[in-house]
Amino acid sequence: MSARADGAAIGVDIGGTRLRAAVVDPTGRVVAREASGRPETEDPDCFRDLLLDELERLAAALGPGLPVGIGVAALVGRDGRLVAAPNLPAAGMNLGRLAAGRLEVPVSVANDATVACLAEARVGAARDADDVVLVTVGTGVGGGAMIAGGLLRGAGGMAAEFGHMVVQDGGRACPCGARGCVEAYASGRAIAARAAELLADGGGPSTLEGLDQVDGLAVSRAADDGDALARRVIDEAGSWLGIGLSDLVNALDPAVVLIGGGAGQALAGRLIPAARRVMEDHVVGTPARALPALLPAALGDDAGVVGAALLALDDHPPR
Amino acid sequence: MSARADGAAIGVDIGGTRLRAAVVDPTGRVVAREASGRPETEDPDCFRDLLLDELERLAAALGPGLPVGIGVAALVGRDGRLVAAPNLPAAGMNLGRLAAGRLEVPVSVANDATVACLAEARVGAARDADDVVLVTVGTGVGGGAMIAGGLLRGAGGMAAEFGHMVVQDGGRACPCGARGCVEAYASGRAIAARAAELLADGGGPSTLEGLDQVDGLAVSRAADDGDALARRVIDEAGSWLGIGLSDLVNALDPAVVLIGGGAGQALAGRLIPAARRVMEDHVVGTPARALPALLPAALGDDAGVVGAALLALDDHPPR
Repeated sequence: MSARADGAAIGVDIGGTRLRAAVVDPTGRVVAREASGRPETEDPDCFRDLLLDELERLAAALGPGLPVGIGVAALVGRDGRLVAAPNLPAAGMNLGRLAAGRLEVPVSVANDATVACLAEARVGAARDADDVVLVTVGTGVGGGAMIAGGLLRGAGGMAAEFGHMVVQDGGRACPCGARGCVEAYASGRAIAARAAELLADGGGPSTLEGLDQVDGLAVSRAADDGDALARRVIDEAGSWLGIGLSDLVNALDPAVVLIGGGAGQALAGRLIPAARRVMEDHVVGTPARALPALLPAALGDDAGVVGAALLALDDHPPR
Repeated sequence: MSARADGAAIGVDIGGTRLRAAVVDPTGRVVAREASGRPETEDPDCFRDLLLDELERLAAALGPGLPVGIGVAALVGRDGRLVAAPNLPAAGMNLGRLAAGRLEVPVSVANDATVACLAEARVGAARDADDVVLVTVGTGVGGGAMIAGGLLRGAGGMAAEFGHMVVQDGGRACPCGARGCVEAYASGRAIAARAAELLADGGGPSTLEGLDQVDGLAVSRAADDGDALARRVIDEAGSWLGIGLSDLVNALDPAVVLIGGGAGQALAGRLIPAARRVMEDHVVGTPARALPALLPAALGDDAGVVGAALLALDDHPPR
């Protein structure tokens, strides 16, 4: 499935469970794609070797010689090092240097939600906006931002960790080790945990009561079917998300705020109105000042590969 | 006191109680200065007329024909309009347009803490850093940021309202009308209120007990003299500030974080260590990732006029 396109790049999206790759042309169009599971090992050395083998295979299959951009579910330093990687056995690995050495092409690496924001701002739901915030609601909560037309990277490359902004000091425990983060209230995992908590406390009746396992998708389906407990849980999560989004609007004043990620896009219809109500009370200057547009992201699962490829093209423009 | 300097601009700092102006050369040096009280009226029309008269007087005295930058204690739109101004009777006034019309020179207007950040990044405590956050602790809490070498303005010009990021949903009432904002815990006003609250609750003994009025300066002096209650209050405020700074580091990943403002610079010696302890627990990726430098601002009362003048020079470079 080799493919070439003038000035194209390969975008790779390394998630906690899946690995996606695509050839993307300079207009953001996906020309060819591949997907696989991520290497199934928890041993860091073994993971590194298997990942590099898989990257080499993908590059050879999709477009040898093309520049490669990688978006990865990790805190990524400017030098391509994975400073922390809660869902991959890869903390400390210099993915940028290792991949460039193996593939013998220029490689750019950044956080997966950060590159997704680049894709949404260039060719997705925030096309043509210069100041954009993307918050991804999946298993965790991540983010990315465009500031004055440039991708927000930060001095060390680790900016836009919006899921770990604190909305309730001393509040619910977050997987990051702190308490009260947005992620502890508004992630897919937090939504499922809150539903299970309410069910255990006799908060029903709910169609969720009969299920072996309550996950974010089950809560989403129940809410769509009119389940009151499921709707309450999503509305609560949306209100917490609204606090985090208010903080981001107060800090960054974007023209557009996007809700992405698997759970975020599935639940946008309920999350966005709940978040908006809170934002009307918390964004400084309202109502004299209008809130930014608050929209679902548009690119779905492609946001990562498209954004990663566009990052590679920004860093290494075709001659 | 007329003064000219090649390529200079006039910077004006309009605060809740004072009005400062200076001629600033392109290197950020103050060549001449003037100060006055702000027009003493709460009537918006009267305030507007008196302010424009005073701006005209200052420009004529300091440097007729020079471009003018204005930093003002208000939420300022891209068009120069004061969208909200809690401490000035000027909400809705288009200061940029009115001042340009009266002075017949190019006029740039932005929030006072935002221009202070520009000054600190160019010629102050964060010289040569491209990614900088300034949080000003005065009567309220404000801020500014440099992102990749550019001043953070936002789509509508209203970015960097860091004082209104929420650290405790439903917490203490903030002058902005919301609850739980950083400003409700870490401003000079909040520090004074918290000290008064503890004294009323019998939290002493404290040297503050004998005072008619407890303000931020009194708390600062008492802490310097070893007063335990005053120290506790400042340490608490520093911890809350640390939550807000953690949010900003997680969001923006700056190389340098500065604490400015009157109370902030007076209390930096206690606020900064208290904030740092909290940041070590809340910034994602620590300890593998180092915290940014956390320093007091350097320019004191000059930050506003210098930053306002530099903004005018950025917007209207000398030919």
